[in-house]
Amino acid sequence: MSRHKVIYDTDPGVDDAMALVFQALHPDIELLGLTSVFGNATIETTTRNARVLAGRFAPGVPVAQGAAAPLERSAPEPLAWIHGDNGVGNIALDTTDAAALDARPAHRFIIETVRAHPGEVTLLAVGPLTNLALALADDPQIASLVKQVVIMGGAFGTDGVLGNVTPAAEANILGDPDAADIVFGAAWPVAIVGLDVTQRTIMSHQYLASLRERGGAAGQFVWEVSRHYEAFHEQSAQLEGIYVHDSSAVAYVLAPQLYTTRSGPVRVLTEGIAVGQTIQKPSAMPVPATAWDSRPNCKVCVEVDVPGMLALYERTICGTL
Amino acid sequence: MSRHKVIYDTDPGVDDAMALVFQALHPDIELLGLTSVFGNATIETTTRNARVLAGRFAPGVPVAQGAAAPLERSAPEPLAWIHGDNGVGNIALDTTDAAALDARPAHRFIIETVRAHPGEVTLLAVGPLTNLALALADDPQIASLVKQVVIMGGAFGTDGVLGNVTPAAEANILGDPDAADIVFGAAWPVAIVGLDVTQRTIMSHQYLASLRERGGAAGQFVWEVSRHYEAFHEQSAQLEGIYVHDSSAVAYVLAPQLYTTRSGPVRVLTEGIAVGQTIQKPSAMPVPATAWDSRPNCKVCVEVDVPGMLALYERTICGTL
Repeated sequence: MSRHKVIYDTDPGVDDAMALVFQALHPDIELLGLTSVFGNATIETTTRNARVLAGRFAPGVPVAQGAAAPLERSAPEPLAWIHGDNGVGNIALDTTDAAALDARPAHRFIIETVRAHPGEVTLLAVGPLTNLALALADDPQIASLVKQVVIMGGAFGTDGVLGNVTPAAEANILGDPDAADIVFGAAWPVAIVGLDVTQRTIMSHQYLASLRERGGAAGQFVWEVSRHYEAFHEQSAQLEGIYVHDSSAVAYVLAPQLYTTRSGPVRVLTEGIAVGQTIQKPSAMPVPATAWDSRPNCKVCVEVDVPGMLALYERTICGTL
Repeated sequence: MSRHKVIYDTDPGVDDAMALVFQALHPDIELLGLTSVFGNATIETTTRNARVLAGRFAPGVPVAQGAAAPLERSAPEPLAWIHGDNGVGNIALDTTDAAALDARPAHRFIIETVRAHPGEVTLLAVGPLTNLALALADDPQIASLVKQVVIMGGAFGTDGVLGNVTPAAEANILGDPDAADIVFGAAWPVAIVGLDVTQRTIMSHQYLASLRERGGAAGQFVWEVSRHYEAFHEQSAQLEGIYVHDSSAVAYVLAPQLYTTRSGPVRVLTEGIAVGQTIQKPSAMPVPATAWDSRPNCKVCVEVDVPGMLALYERTICGTL
């Protein structure tokens, strides 16, 4: 099969970094670029991290700096207690070989790259969706030129989980709910891996230790970058391991058969106590719902083959595909 | 053990009727009264039905008429395509032995009955929660005098379901979201059986036919009253059987061990496209959430022992407890 041409829109971010290594090492993904966005840390931090990560794991892949704040709100506080003060678990960062910064803002990079490869580009977005919304605003026609948009974000409750940063909202979507509602409403194929599914996929302490032993420099990096993150999970959720958020979206691109999806339009609440909540109207639902009915269907993941996903990541990092 | 003194707040309603028969025949429930509310049909229809049902299955139990409309909105349209034009599946109704109507409005009946049995009364509410909110407004102290409030309403997504009348709302809660938010926020013990759990409990066509054969007059009634309702389920959900909504709340009163619950405050959205949605902040969630944190915990059902629930209903109707 042909390789997936991917623009990785990211706010590194520990699990963003782990998902970048996954993409860089998998032979079926051709990274066309990284676009940074605020989210897990400030735009300055996430852009610096994206450049360091690209320079090390995806040399030659350009990085374009994206939005510093949501479309209509102020930027959220960096999630330092989750991702560390430097956004990548407080590991030492060597900027010597950091990728050069593309001259274009992220949304222009997205537009021009999509137009250069019509029908071929996968937008893989694992942070607030501001860059994608800006790209749509600037050039609405790209919606019909993108192959697919795969998103880690939101939560659909299938394991009883509707949010992590509030009882009703997941961090990426709450980061820019207005942008998310625009992105889910555009006429491009959207697939969403939400928190309720990513939280079912857990890399245990033992799994991560095995990557360190068997995964060479990449495995060693995944181990190191995840130490602070694992401590956060143990403290906040009594979990001996980490949830696999962003890498689940990569796995969806590579092996969608690992996920069961439900079709239907998705809205994002942009006000009230549940701001940032993602709500799908399943296509099978027999009642009218005007706020949903005029919008295109999205695919929402509702089930995951957890062992299959974990094996795919492990084989990629360890070079045993 | 002592019997459960129950006030049944209801909008009959096919499954309301099935749940009344369940309560009337189970020896551990002592029905203190029925209070009617608008919902599945108009208040005139639900009150008439409550009187007919009480007269037939719970003779001597008083019926008090409740709210005709929500606290702050207009009354919804009757759900005739679900519950039939007469609210109880279009079966013939004999009003000859209908219960007399109590002189008090439902919320006064609730207040005075709770005060007559302090600490003993279970409020079992399976319609819009207007009567309970009116009772709280009129006499806030009853919150500390009620044994427990058990509610069929809302949806918490645990099987991916957040609503039935909209993508985010269940009918009882959407019937009066303001009242529901008041009831869930009062200082009385609340347990909620939501749509995501009641829809996992299905009485098949065969199960209902077996009740007809083995359940005497009550089984015959359950069969007859559910014909229109079963046809609705087949047409709307391709289901050969019916969801067990209101009787699940009865089962929770009788056998809470059939249900796994999650503790935490519950809010109801009262505006926006997701109006009527119920959102719990699970107690284990480590983030602050001001809209939830000042409110008392409710128990939300997240799992059900389906065979156990169905066996309890069957044994009650068939007299084989």
